[in-house]
Amino acid sequence: MIVVMKPGSSQKQIDHMIERIEEMGLRSHVIVGTDRTVIAALGEKRDGAKQALETGEGVEKVVPILAPYKMASTEVKKERTVVKSHDLKVGNCHIGIIAGPCSVESREQILEVAHIVKEAGAAGLRGGAFKPRTSPYSFQGLKEKGLQLLAEARAATGLAVVTEVMAPEQVQLVAEYADVLQVGARNMQNYPLLEKVGEAGLPVLLKRGPSATLDEFLLAAEYILKTGNTQVMLCERGIRTFEDHTRFTLPLATVPYLHQTTHLPVVVDPSHGTGKASLVATMAKAAIAAEADGLIVEIHPNPEVAMSDGFQALTPPAFRQMMQECRKIAAAVGREM
Amino acid sequence: MIVVMKPGSSQKQIDHMIERIEEMGLRSHVIVGTDRTVIAALGEKRDGAKQALETGEGVEKVVPILAPYKMASTEVKKERTVVKSHDLKVGNCHIGIIAGPCSVESREQILEVAHIVKEAGAAGLRGGAFKPRTSPYSFQGLKEKGLQLLAEARAATGLAVVTEVMAPEQVQLVAEYADVLQVGARNMQNYPLLEKVGEAGLPVLLKRGPSATLDEFLLAAEYILKTGNTQVMLCERGIRTFEDHTRFTLPLATVPYLHQTTHLPVVVDPSHGTGKASLVATMAKAAIAAEADGLIVEIHPNPEVAMSDGFQALTPPAFRQMMQECRKIAAAVGREM
Amino acid sequence: MIVVMKPGSSQKQIDHMIERIEEMGLRSHVIVGTDRTVIAALGEKRDGAKQALETGEGVEKVVPILAPYKMASTEVKKERTVVKSHDLKVGNCHIGIIAGPCSVESREQILEVAHIVKEAGAAGLRGGAFKPRTSPYSFQGLKEKGLQLLAEARAATGLAVVTEVMAPEQVQLVAEYADVLQVGARNMQNYPLLEKVGEAGLPVLLKRGPSATLDEFLLAAEYILKTGNTQVMLCERGIRTFEDHTRFTLPLATVPYLHQTTHLPVVVDPSHGTGKASLVATMAKAAIAAEADGLIVEIHPNPEVAMSDGFQALTPPAFRQMMQECRKIAAAVGREM
Amino acid sequence: MIVVMKPGSSQKQIDHMIERIEEMGLRSHVIVGTDRTVIAALGEKRDGAKQALETGEGVEKVVPILAPYKMASTEVKKERTVVKSHDLKVGNCHIGIIAGPCSVESREQILEVAHIVKEAGAAGLRGGAFKPRTSPYSFQGLKEKGLQLLAEARAATGLAVVTEVMAPEQVQLVAEYADVLQVGARNMQNYPLLEKVGEAGLPVLLKRGPSATLDEFLLAAEYILKTGNTQVMLCERGIRTFEDHTRFTLPLATVPYLHQTTHLPVVVDPSHGTGKASLVATMAKAAIAAEADGLIVEIHPNPEVAMSDGFQALTPPAFRQMMQECRKIAAAVGREM
Repeated sequence: MIVVMKPGSSQKQIDHMIERIEEMGLRSHVIVGTDRTVIAALGEKRDGAKQALETGEGVEKVVPILAPYKMASTEVKKERTVVKSHDLKVGNCHIGIIAGPCSVESREQILEVAHIVKEAGAAGLRGGAFKPRTSPYSFQGLKEKGLQLLAEARAATGLAVVTEVMAPEQVQLVAEYADVLQVGARNMQNYPLLEKVGEAGLPVLLKRGPSATLDEFLLAAEYILKTGNTQVMLCERGIRTFEDHTRFTLPLATVPYLHQTTHLPVVVDPSHGTGKASLVATMAKAAIAAEADGLIVEIHPNPEVAMSDGFQALTPPAFRQMMQECRKIAAAVGREM
Repeated sequence: MIVVMKPGSSQKQIDHMIERIEEMGLRSHVIVGTDRTVIAALGEKRDGAKQALETGEGVEKVVPILAPYKMASTEVKKERTVVKSHDLKVGNCHIGIIAGPCSVESREQILEVAHIVKEAGAAGLRGGAFKPRTSPYSFQGLKEKGLQLLAEARAATGLAVVTEVMAPEQVQLVAEYADVLQVGARNMQNYPLLEKVGEAGLPVLLKRGPSATLDEFLLAAEYILKTGNTQVMLCERGIRTFEDHTRFTLPLATVPYLHQTTHLPVVVDPSHGTGKASLVATMAKAAIAAEADGLIVEIHPNPEVAMSDGFQALTPPAFRQMMQECRKIAAAVGREM
Repeated sequence: MIVVMKPGSSQKQIDHMIERIEEMGLRSHVIVGTDRTVIAALGEKRDGAKQALETGEGVEKVVPILAPYKMASTEVKKERTVVKSHDLKVGNCHIGIIAGPCSVESREQILEVAHIVKEAGAAGLRGGAFKPRTSPYSFQGLKEKGLQLLAEARAATGLAVVTEVMAPEQVQLVAEYADVLQVGARNMQNYPLLEKVGEAGLPVLLKRGPSATLDEFLLAAEYILKTGNTQVMLCERGIRTFEDHTRFTLPLATVPYLHQTTHLPVVVDPSHGTGKASLVATMAKAAIAAEADGLIVEIHPNPEVAMSDGFQALTPPAFRQMMQECRKIAAAVGREM
Repeated sequence: MIVVMKPGSSQKQIDHMIERIEEMGLRSHVIVGTDRTVIAALGEKRDGAKQALETGEGVEKVVPILAPYKMASTEVKKERTVVKSHDLKVGNCHIGIIAGPCSVESREQILEVAHIVKEAGAAGLRGGAFKPRTSPYSFQGLKEKGLQLLAEARAATGLAVVTEVMAPEQVQLVAEYADVLQVGARNMQNYPLLEKVGEAGLPVLLKRGPSATLDEFLLAAEYILKTGNTQVMLCERGIRTFEDHTRFTLPLATVPYLHQTTHLPVVVDPSHGTGKASLVATMAKAAIAAEADGLIVEIHPNPEVAMSDGFQALTPPAFRQMMQECRKIAAAVGREM
């Protein structure tokens, strides 16, 4: 850390900061500049120190040098993580596709979709059984019944089941049926949930919160990694901005930036990222070109009667076409899917 | 709702939409304009219908007319809600002040702060026992021990204890010690938590998520109200924007806007809203001038050694001065505190 | 437009609104719903009416139905606009690449870059002669001397010169040398400039302002189109959001969305859109996959000594590689570049 | 500046950076930490250096220590600037109120408003003669005729005329009639305009761009200050965020933050800042409580027939009441208005 003193700060204030830095077990190093003094605080320390030092009298700001996350960092682990479940492989040049309805609605619906997903060449089946809904008056999911239907669809197709878990006390139940536990965007900083999900030992799909910085996103992943579970996929699903022609703004530079900073695979969700079925396939292609390690896409046999989010679901034919086009892009960037 | 058809949509598409609207139990009303046709869908229906209709062929967009929340609305309840606990009264011209440390750190600390808070004329004591922290390497709170210390501080001062609960399974424990349950910004859309908190029957302080619209904020409150618990305070604590000189952007127009749309009281948190101790008192005054029904403010006997968020905590003398200045503003806007 | 009355609005208020709508030359159509009354205002009217009606007593909101722009709209012109200058062709499946330094710095620099650009297969040469700089203490460009050097580079290579014009009174001078006039992001709503640029009759590259909605962007284009100049390229160069790991957030969904709403071609600027050289090539590929009609990219023979924005410039070898990779993506989406 | 090297950067890369720092006339100071090396670059240098150093190989980032603006800074000038024109005094405990219509529409309108403004105790008259409008189809102002009417209103009342200038070539004309030149939010980074306005020698009201950081805002002011014109008022008028219940988000913490960093007075525009007449007076009070040095407010004798922005204009009675209430707040914060 670099402690930047205000211009005109007193020697007493500077000495006080040096003392505090050394109390923290760090080495201090004073640099007297033209306008002001800065103090470098050296040593291994990632948290709390910055904030504590910032309150010192005469301090203008404290500039961190190290990234705040550790285990997610490429500095700590060079080889890229590959997340695997059944035939789903995500990361290190393997592109994994996860598709399915927003919500599991019925046996017929989920089985029909599962076959479509399988035949189009995807390896993961998404589908919500416990649904977080903005309004308490909306359909909240089939709950355990939905999980059973997902398991049935897996049995029929061999797809890996990816489904959301909303609360720590649901983790055990969901883990009995699911292959991959999804943590939704609203829960990215639900720390008790992250810990429970990590402990369950299954692969995790962690969605970025719509106002989370990438540092915050990686620190959320760190909660899971800290339990010893390293099978974590990061999912970009759009951020909240002033734009009003899409549901969220999908910032694809997340993908190459995360590839530089973390070994964890990065999946893109063009369905929530745009909120418009007519934009999904194009953004799926752009994500693959940006070297995304996977996609998670909403499809529905008949979007018009979907119980949630039909407006962003692809029809089966549109999904098949998206898959074909994405394969061409994958080939163009030297990857297979 | 108004279903806006694309220019050139066919009569068949229009007829199909009419049919779908009527299947939903709504009345339809077609208006043929110069460029395009719109269909009004009339009747009591707040959720799902908009999204379902949006997927129809030939539909350009669906415009909702009703607000999506009900019980929080001034349309449903005219008289303003007053939240009460011990001497704390928030709403309908009563300004309630809640102050205390970010985290409960020790018996000495919390008792010292509680006496300062009480003597300065505030009625609520804040203090975190379970702390949601962005980094898993940060101090996570004293947990139940912290709750016991808060209860001890209440016994000594008569202040109402306001403390955060982070997970549904903690609600019962926290409710044994607390007077007001706080739901943090990161958990604004943690629906299982909202429901449990509502059922606990204690007053609730619900913080706005940093990227939540006010409709989403009121729908989160609706999850609590739906349990029958009407003692809900809404807390504006800043939103995430591109601004980088403050920790968050504190949008005070939230206060008068919510006063027009909901009967629930509105509390402002200038500590998180700015993230800088030097800006807190000024923004507290501005909040009172904007007719906030309460403030929640972080103070610490010695911010430099605070275990969390010291950079935004007021010292006791600064807090006392803030209280005096806020009282003058309250008088100027015809309210008492 | 749909005028939504408040619940409980009086018949007198409703009658007053009907009168006002008809005074505007629109037809009114009243729909009495369960909770409230709405009035449809029918007829051709795009501006001012919404705002004027919104002030009426008893009115809750006014919902526009028509998009506010006309000439840019696919409703008005179906065939896609192709912008052409020398060998540069942008739009309708032609992908045009424009590359060059942030600023023209010297004769040697711009000639060297121009040859690199040409040999790599691009058709446009960018380079700033008049530079808008955030700080008055930064290098402000070579001005007319810079324009002369650009013209010399065109003579040597046949590339189309794309350069920024910052003020109405510079338009004539810049138009003497340039092939395409660029309006920078800071000037997207500089209306006197848009009008002068339109009147100059040259093709225009209009950059999106970092906080402009797409409606505002298209309305800015409309200022140019209204002068009779239809050779307008829209350029997405990133928006301002809370993200701090990139200079701006590059929202590629702009491309397919604009392709649905306007016939004008859409160019992407991955250099400003990311502000990091290491992310530029990947986002260029993603833009082509998203069906961008062109790219504008910053390159520099030696970014370390660039007089502006070196941190986001590609080196010549990196640019050549980007071109090769982008061609593969273009082929994969059925386009040539 | 602090140059932070990547972990594992080579000695050669470090030596190269030292050389480059010293070529810039700065002193370098190397600090070898546990994980990586940082190099402090000491000396007076505000611009360009950071960006140039950032491109060096092995460099992770460059952290600036000094603020990028000079003349606007409280480090350079301690005493607070007071802007004066006729009876208008803004800054250093003087609160100046500027009010009037969005656009000058007619002789009757502007004279009527001017008398209302004067009688309510304000000292500045706003009114647009040249109007920047998002749509080319909107009313664009009365131009020179409008300026003449403003001058007539000044003659009748003694109010200082504040009006916008949109292009460098209009400055001379507008300066013949106006007392204060306003630079609008869309033109905050129109540098040729800032320079011309500075040279005109009249006081300037500079509005913050809706996506400008405060550093960018102060650098725009610096363009004016650099011409030798020190009569500059900064105006916060709202930023663009995801919030959709107000036209912009009005971040009042701008006021105390700027009071800490600059000697220039800060004016708040609650009309554009909210875009809703029903929120204006409350936010005006909050701004005064936040210690704003002035307000600029839109009023109209009959908002329903206003030719622009009627939805955010106060009626004369509402304005008079706002003035009375603001005076009470001003007294409560120890200021006069």
